[in-house]
Amino acid sequence: MGKHVSRRGFMGGMAAAVGYLSTRPSAELWAQGGPAAVAAQRARGRMTPEQYDRMAKLANNENNFGPPDSVMKAMNAAWKYVGRYGYPDGDIVQVIADHHGVKPENILLGAGSGEILDVVGTTYLLGGKKAIGCDPSYGSVYQHATAIKADSIRVPLKADHNLDTSKMIELANQRASEIGFYYLCNPNNPTGLIVPKQEVKAIVENLPKGMPILIDEAYHHFVNTADYETAIPYVLEGRPVIVARTFSKIAGLAAMRLGYAVAPREIIQQMRPFAMNSINVLVKHGGVASIKDAAAQADVKNKIITQRTKTTNELKAYGYDVIPSETNFFMVHLGRQVQPVIEEFRQREVLVGRPFPPMLEHLRVSIGTPEEMDRFMVAFKQIFPAKTRQTNVAGQ
Amino acid sequence: MGKHVSRRGFMGGMAAAVGYLSTRPSAELWAQGGPAAVAAQRARGRMTPEQYDRMAKLANNENNFGPPDSVMKAMNAAWKYVGRYGYPDGDIVQVIADHHGVKPENILLGAGSGEILDVVGTTYLLGGKKAIGCDPSYGSVYQHATAIKADSIRVPLKADHNLDTSKMIELANQRASEIGFYYLCNPNNPTGLIVPKQEVKAIVENLPKGMPILIDEAYHHFVNTADYETAIPYVLEGRPVIVARTFSKIAGLAAMRLGYAVAPREIIQQMRPFAMNSINVLVKHGGVASIKDAAAQADVKNKIITQRTKTTNELKAYGYDVIPSETNFFMVHLGRQVQPVIEEFRQREVLVGRPFPPMLEHLRVSIGTPEEMDRFMVAFKQIFPAKTRQTNVAGQ
Repeated sequence: MGKHVSRRGFMGGMAAAVGYLSTRPSAELWAQGGPAAVAAQRARGRMTPEQYDRMAKLANNENNFGPPDSVMKAMNAAWKYVGRYGYPDGDIVQVIADHHGVKPENILLGAGSGEILDVVGTTYLLGGKKAIGCDPSYGSVYQHATAIKADSIRVPLKADHNLDTSKMIELANQRASEIGFYYLCNPNNPTGLIVPKQEVKAIVENLPKGMPILIDEAYHHFVNTADYETAIPYVLEGRPVIVARTFSKIAGLAAMRLGYAVAPREIIQQMRPFAMNSINVLVKHGGVASIKDAAAQADVKNKIITQRTKTTNELKAYGYDVIPSETNFFMVHLGRQVQPVIEEFRQREVLVGRPFPPMLEHLRVSIGTPEEMDRFMVAFKQIFPAKTRQTNVAGQ
Repeated sequence: MGKHVSRRGFMGGMAAAVGYLSTRPSAELWAQGGPAAVAAQRARGRMTPEQYDRMAKLANNENNFGPPDSVMKAMNAAWKYVGRYGYPDGDIVQVIADHHGVKPENILLGAGSGEILDVVGTTYLLGGKKAIGCDPSYGSVYQHATAIKADSIRVPLKADHNLDTSKMIELANQRASEIGFYYLCNPNNPTGLIVPKQEVKAIVENLPKGMPILIDEAYHHFVNTADYETAIPYVLEGRPVIVARTFSKIAGLAAMRLGYAVAPREIIQQMRPFAMNSINVLVKHGGVASIKDAAAQADVKNKIITQRTKTTNELKAYGYDVIPSETNFFMVHLGRQVQPVIEEFRQREVLVGRPFPPMLEHLRVSIGTPEEMDRFMVAFKQIFPAKTRQTNVAGQ
């Protein structure tokens, strides 16, 4: 598999799912990232920009409310540096460090948290080591491992869709010499479920000494339960923890590419040679503005939770089980294969998430605007009949 | 040395040169790319954004005329995709491929050509191989080699400042087993001199079979002599040539980060796992607009050559030798150490290039607007006396 299927190339999976792969020759489409990107480009090739604009985009965990005004204003004010190298950058590294109570030496900027995940992979897997993580999870880590001729150990989720962290700790100790780092996406994608803080603590305390732990907190800002905590305090303790964060979700800046790692200085130093240190000027200023605008972050969080609650309640009332999410997306159990359903939504101008094997009867839906969620529910009710509600497998 | 000193962190060298390194503590400044970036941040720490705005910026080979209207318009029209992943991207890879008469499989996008240079280094030097190139040249390749615990073989320029390509070919054959790739910056930075097409041909034909040849054509668009040719035709021949290009110079988009590699498919496939595939949406659309606006490219080239000719003629008339440049910068021989001169210019609100050892009596000056070049000449005449002209070492 190519890189960046999950978060970056959402139409790839969808296109593959509905059979676009056979419709155009492949050679000229290779250029942007392997098979997944080929598929994404194919899908774009069949969708004009106008068609794309009309879609309700609920496929890729984007923030459909867009960046707040403060962020847009900061980005537009930075155009004067468009042709520069050594320009004033809003002291973004210092601002991020201050925000987390760490030092700039603990921060590594990336072109999205995707760069951070790749850099961790290159730093700790080269030579054929393995990443250990759960399955399904955000797939980029595993795909990058494959791309650099390393590998991964993927531990299936439990029946309730939660991570089997005990099993993961056990395996990490049994096979320590093979493992380059331990990967956790918290909250997890595609399920939207958190790993409780006590389980994170158990991981940190019971892995082999010194084994790097990458914790992808891309959806951190949407969590609303006391059972969850960020892992950044472990960095301050000097644990080998790398927390990845992104401005793609809470700040609505996915296409601008900005994320960062928070980690002990020694780890940042190991990673830095493989990072590009090549971040767009506008998003540096946008990132600073986002961190400083806590009110806008709270507003987006509130809007998303409101829409998520409304939509999932409607689905449950209509008889469909939903995995309780702490993120800007959720999964609904369809009772039949998801793959053809994706195309049925697309015909109604609603883009929904790709298949996440082995959860092939679950559909992942990102939270959009109220109008988009209405369009989703209308389409859902056209595609699926009302049901007598089944036992809720997610145990709400 | 850290990464990206030369093209990205221009104030680093300047700051070091004038002694800023002792003025602030270091730990909190580590976060953006090692010592060079630390120095750049220090310099910014002493220069407010308002002071920075007032400077005539002739230090870093930026395009001070800014992006053309067509490019700015295309970028601003792409804001609607700000929060997206799988958005219409103007088919930038196809547009670039068509422009060069190659296939998309021959193109790899980078966040600036700097990413391309790093990716070539990571792909072909890991494990301790060496890059072979000339010295001085654009230093990023050598610095990245050091950062990833690889190395370089640097062949001094000849007395006339041209590359000693015969010597480089000889060494590449003698030490082939140690060498990961051959590096050529054409035209060369910091001299502005081209490598004639016959010498490039000799390199391509006489290196050990299969040795990758990275040719950085960042300044390609400014060249105005029939002795030079792009190396892209060698890619079409299937030679192991990787041409790096950037939108930072001709399109004025340095802070937006877009460049690309043109290379045989097999080489692109080897490089791709180490590329981030994480390009800002606005600059993708800006890049497409730039390629399609040949008139704007010609206009910028013309403005730069006009200013370069005017300024270098004035310097020669004033008694100072100039290396004849084919780029948007040139070197003038000062007859004394450049390091203190940089600060003398800075006091006059003119930023000029850092020292390029061992050419420590040469000053590198980037071409700016007519007003900026006037400010440069006024400052030059304040700092330096008129001289009876010496023999021109560059042999104009």
